Amino acid sequence: MTGKTEPNVDFEEEENSLNDFGVMMLVLEIILVALLWVFAKDSIVNPTDGLVSQRYPAYQDVNVMMLVGFAFLMTFIRSYAWSSIAYTFFLNAFIVQIYILLYAFWDKVWNGGWNTTITISVDITTLIGCSYAVASVLVAAGGVIGRCGPKDLLIIMIFQIIGYSLNERIVFTSIGMIDGGCSSTIHTYGAYYGLAVCVVLSKKAKPITNIKISYISNIFAFIGTLFLWIYYPSFNYGLLAQNSFEQNLIVVNTVLSLTGSVLGTYIVSALGFGRGLEMENILNATISGGVVMGAPCSFIYRPGVALFIGFSTGIISTLCFHHLTPKLLDCIGLYDTCGIHNLHGIPGVLGGLWSAVIVAFYNTGFDTEIAAMYSNGNFLFPTTNSFLKQGGLQVAGTFCSMAMAILFGILGGLVTSFFYKEKPKYFYLDTEYFENAHFREIYKGDSGENNYLNQKNAKN
Amino acid sequence: MTGKTEPNVDFEEEENSLNDFGVMMLVLEIILVALLWVFAKDSIVNPTDGLVSQRYPAYQDVNVMMLVGFAFLMTFIRSYAWSSIAYTFFLNAFIVQIYILLYAFWDKVWNGGWNTTITISVDITTLIGCSYAVASVLVAAGGVIGRCGPKDLLIIMIFQIIGYSLNERIVFTSIGMIDGGCSSTIHTYGAYYGLAVCVVLSKKAKPITNIKISYISNIFAFIGTLFLWIYYPSFNYGLLAQNSFEQNLIVVNTVLSLTGSVLGTYIVSALGFGRGLEMENILNATISGGVVMGAPCSFIYRPGVALFIGFSTGIISTLCFHHLTPKLLDCIGLYDTCGIHNLHGIPGVLGGLWSAVIVAFYNTGFDTEIAAMYSNGNFLFPTTNSFLKQGGLQVAGTFCSMAMAILFGILGGLVTSFFYKEKPKYFYLDTEYFENAHFREIYKGDSGENNYLNQKNAKN
Amino acid sequence: MTGKTEPNVDFEEEENSLNDFGVMMLVLEIILVALLWVFAKDSIVNPTDGLVSQRYPAYQDVNVMMLVGFAFLMTFIRSYAWSSIAYTFFLNAFIVQIYILLYAFWDKVWNGGWNTTITISVDITTLIGCSYAVASVLVAAGGVIGRCGPKDLLIIMIFQIIGYSLNERIVFTSIGMIDGGCSSTIHTYGAYYGLAVCVVLSKKAKPITNIKISYISNIFAFIGTLFLWIYYPSFNYGLLAQNSFEQNLIVVNTVLSLTGSVLGTYIVSALGFGRGLEMENILNATISGGVVMGAPCSFIYRPGVALFIGFSTGIISTLCFHHLTPKLLDCIGLYDTCGIHNLHGIPGVLGGLWSAVIVAFYNTGFDTEIAAMYSNGNFLFPTTNSFLKQGGLQVAGTFCSMAMAILFGILGGLVTSFFYKEKPKYFYLDTEYFENAHFREIYKGDSGENNYLNQKNAKN
Repeated sequence: MTGKTEPNVDFEEEENSLNDFGVMMLVLEIILVALLWVFAKDSIVNPTDGLVSQRYPAYQDVNVMMLVGFAFLMTFIRSYAWSSIAYTFFLNAFIVQIYILLYAFWDKVWNGGWNTTITISVDITTLIGCSYAVASVLVAAGGVIGRCGPKDLLIIMIFQIIGYSLNERIVFTSIGMIDGGCSSTIHTYGAYYGLAVCVVLSKKAKPITNIKISYISNIFAFIGTLFLWIYYPSFNYGLLAQNSFEQNLIVVNTVLSLTGSVLGTYIVSALGFGRGLEMENILNATISGGVVMGAPCSFIYRPGVALFIGFSTGIISTLCFHHLTPKLLDCIGLYDTCGIHNLHGIPGVLGGLWSAVIVAFYNTGFDTEIAAMYSNGNFLFPTTNSFLKQGGLQVAGTFCSMAMAILFGILGGLVTSFFYKEKPKYFYLDTEYFENAHFREIYKGDSGENNYLNQKNAKN
Repeated sequence: MTGKTEPNVDFEEEENSLNDFGVMMLVLEIILVALLWVFAKDSIVNPTDGLVSQRYPAYQDVNVMMLVGFAFLMTFIRSYAWSSIAYTFFLNAFIVQIYILLYAFWDKVWNGGWNTTITISVDITTLIGCSYAVASVLVAAGGVIGRCGPKDLLIIMIFQIIGYSLNERIVFTSIGMIDGGCSSTIHTYGAYYGLAVCVVLSKKAKPITNIKISYISNIFAFIGTLFLWIYYPSFNYGLLAQNSFEQNLIVVNTVLSLTGSVLGTYIVSALGFGRGLEMENILNATISGGVVMGAPCSFIYRPGVALFIGFSTGIISTLCFHHLTPKLLDCIGLYDTCGIHNLHGIPGVLGGLWSAVIVAFYNTGFDTEIAAMYSNGNFLFPTTNSFLKQGGLQVAGTFCSMAMAILFGILGGLVTSFFYKEKPKYFYLDTEYFENAHFREIYKGDSGENNYLNQKNAKN
Repeated sequence: MTGKTEPNVDFEEEENSLNDFGVMMLVLEIILVALLWVFAKDSIVNPTDGLVSQRYPAYQDVNVMMLVGFAFLMTFIRSYAWSSIAYTFFLNAFIVQIYILLYAFWDKVWNGGWNTTITISVDITTLIGCSYAVASVLVAAGGVIGRCGPKDLLIIMIFQIIGYSLNERIVFTSIGMIDGGCSSTIHTYGAYYGLAVCVVLSKKAKPITNIKISYISNIFAFIGTLFLWIYYPSFNYGLLAQNSFEQNLIVVNTVLSLTGSVLGTYIVSALGFGRGLEMENILNATISGGVVMGAPCSFIYRPGVALFIGFSTGIISTLCFHHLTPKLLDCIGLYDTCGIHNLHGIPGVLGGLWSAVIVAFYNTGFDTEIAAMYSNGNFLFPTTNSFLKQGGLQVAGTFCSMAMAILFGILGGLVTSFFYKEKPKYFYLDTEYFENAHFREIYKGDSGENNYLNQKNAKN
């Protein structure tokens, strides 16, 4: 302990909070089991349907991103690794179940059919949709993680998923945005929802300790980063690519964009800050090339364009991690644990805007060849709208997602805030809710020197 | 070392034990190479056979479960991570080779053909079968790991694999159980084989130290848990699904069951024990939803039913980890390192019984629609037997596996016991067989406070 | 710090070195973006092309090997894990981009067509080729890692990739070697390139400290080993298998060979050294069965032969790790950080030679059955040459790769040496280029006892 005082966690009180979580979750789970039992059926897939079989590997890639990628990316917090992984695991399981029902609910609202027998058909494609919903939820969780217990997370995520499933309908069905990798509905919505909750909670959940990293915690975090980076192409094509042409297009563009964001990040990190490469950037901003390629990935047919977009986004994201995060903390008291604004918020919005610019550009007739090729309507490309109008819809979908996120985020934040137990809290500590976590080792080397925010504040 | 005494391992003696292992393994390997050289050929697969190509991703998923999943799940023991991974790695390689031969041997015993030229044909499907055998072996290894050296493990696993390959024939060919994910032959057989060995060895391999965990060792273990959880659907459909219908059915049911067991585990952990969430449960019981779905996964066509089964199994498994393991230790001196009884034994038996109940239930004519759909005989469903009779066979296969496991376990345990070197041993320590493992760090923080069994015994 | 002195890293100086790297990389990246923008297009893949879709899972497996496998395999150095992973990540992104252009350049040199409009078509198959180039680069990096900063690595890798893309053309197009898993162009070329660079740099980059490992660093390294081992079959068939027959053949042979090298490694480690199992061998030599199977994997149709080759290679590789590495250090001052000579160099050459022996053996008419089967020309097998001549070409391709490697290695080494900053250096330390890496923990337990080279030198 080297003379440090171990935070004196009162397990009696925590027990109450865990009890609340357990009871809420038990009631919810009984309802979910009952509803799924009554309404859901496994799909009768045609035995020769090749698409389902081809989608399964993509589904598994996306699952690895959710559970290994997101979970380990958040283990960079030295003393909060157990919670980061355990809450990711739990949220994934919960969201898969509830989203199946919410998706079907909004489908009925949009398409009618309440008077017939309701049957929710579940197949592998449905499950990919569930994992996308999980992605959005985990993006938001990255903002609040470490300052909210499991009960708070549960409340936050229920509001999030309701808004997500509604926004998805509005953006894709009503507006008609084309967004294969969901720059708008997953990243923009997820990030701004999480940030809105953070702002609302900022008074009550004000950490008195800062985030501490360790040498080993950053190695664990690399596991998350690498799996997110590797499988990102599967994420962008997983749900929407219907054939080999689309799959290939999306994969190539996403890979090139990702390599661009890696180089953008390293270059800025090497040139920009004068104190050596920064792990925080390398762990996060390197993935922004995948986020930004969500919407435009199915429109681009020049790898160089994809590479340029990824490269510039990597630069922007790295600069935001370095300069914007400390400013937002100073100005509006915004604690953003994992920097979701820099990795998902800004790249998500950029992705929507890039997709608008690129679609609109086809209006110039520059690439009649490619436009003609798309015209059979099989591909992810505007066919019923003019290019210019579709460009407008891409912008509309992006800002609709942002608006819905802020709206639902304030709502979710207020309700969470109402039930949030205000008290002097030791944030970012596993010892709060985990038995056996009273280890000396998680305080080891607790010299205060390895501290993101302190260093940044000192520089600015 | 902070005043602790480092266990005084006598490398001279260990050298002998390693020499025994090396010589045994060398002789065995020469025999295996010779037999495979003479009898085995690579399959001449039809170049347009799509099934082989579709099975390859599932094969790789199963491989990740075996080598990353099982290996890292066992790294939770602070001072035994090297051994856990290294022995898993070695057992995997050994079992793949020997099972190819044993599978062919029992095939000849059942189907005859000794007088013709014997040719063992090896393709990707064969390799999936090998990985299933590995799974059963690693389940059993989870019970004895830490108290047996490599030579002991080798003896234990030779008896196990002989019994496994025989039991597989009896259950699937003679009895006619339908068990895609092998709740019976892998999990029930593996767990009770391992437990029988543990009981036989309990006098000689009696640990004087308890299992110690660390903050970081549990993060490593999470890598194992997550990959096992993610790829479980591939395990359940890998060998038997012949088409997209079956693949989809098994995947959807397994995923829903797995999400159920996660929530069951968290709810019990939050409500039940009053001292915070327990990593031991979260690392293990969350996977029980996949184990229990092994046998019924191809019969269920309502996701809600799969979810309910997974949810209830998660609850049962968590309660067993908390209450049953300490009781079995007290009553019959059963050391079960990884709690295989709670994760594989009981969920495996439950899986067999659930499959019986569900098949028998179709006898009520409740779901004529689904029964009719299956009647073309393409799917994993009883077609030659009545539903009631098939239900009986499911029960028979389950208990046959348990009986064979105990029989072979006692046999394997007795032989191992005969060659086991009795002595005051420091269990659960990598330093026993690994050069370079004399690190101070693996004894660090050795304060005795982070100790599963101590805490549980104190509570009961 | 327990009385140790922290290396006094002068960040002012490092800043200059990082600035050089940043500026070089920025200029290069602008050129790459421009060239790809102008010349490259996404392939117009036939929407029903099944091969592209089937290759995607193999591509992802290979990616996991590159980014998780290679990166984590190198984390065994206790104080260099951040750099190992971060440089692997960066090199991967850079090589993917530059190789697309170099591949197209040599294609024009060989096949002409400079006077028509140049269009580089990029699809998933192209990306697999890029990942193979990355593999070769990372093999070489394994030799120099820890003694070169990012700027040096960049220079080394630019020469490597030019030589690689040229050698690939010579070996496959001009010579006509058949080498699915690239024993020659990736492993032999990569290893001897790296070793040549090491020798040239050996005077300037002479470590005064030795490589130190830790208990936990070897657990991280196991993540790398296991993913490399698991996905090796995908690597060997990824680019060249055109149908299920070839895929199955390559997978079966590679898996059997890999299991053989695991057992060979364990047997030698248990019998050979008398001090317990050695992690260095288990982490490395176990994979040599995949390396050696690169060239012969498409010619063998007896699993026993593949098993024997893997088994013997595992034994040879382990013996080299134990006996050859210290000798080479003593005799020619060759520092080989990861032992690439033992894992890639020697097994790569053996793979080429085995493929020659096996192909030539068909000349005896021993297996007319299998030779006839291949005669339709669909498979990876010599059809235009006699078996004996093809055997000669296999040898020629192997030694061509070695010669090209040494040639380009000396060239790359000399240029790197020219820009290399000579100074008393603390090698194998992340603190050199990473902000936040001034952690006490990476010096912890710095007692000098856990030291590969020291121990080996002491023994010899």
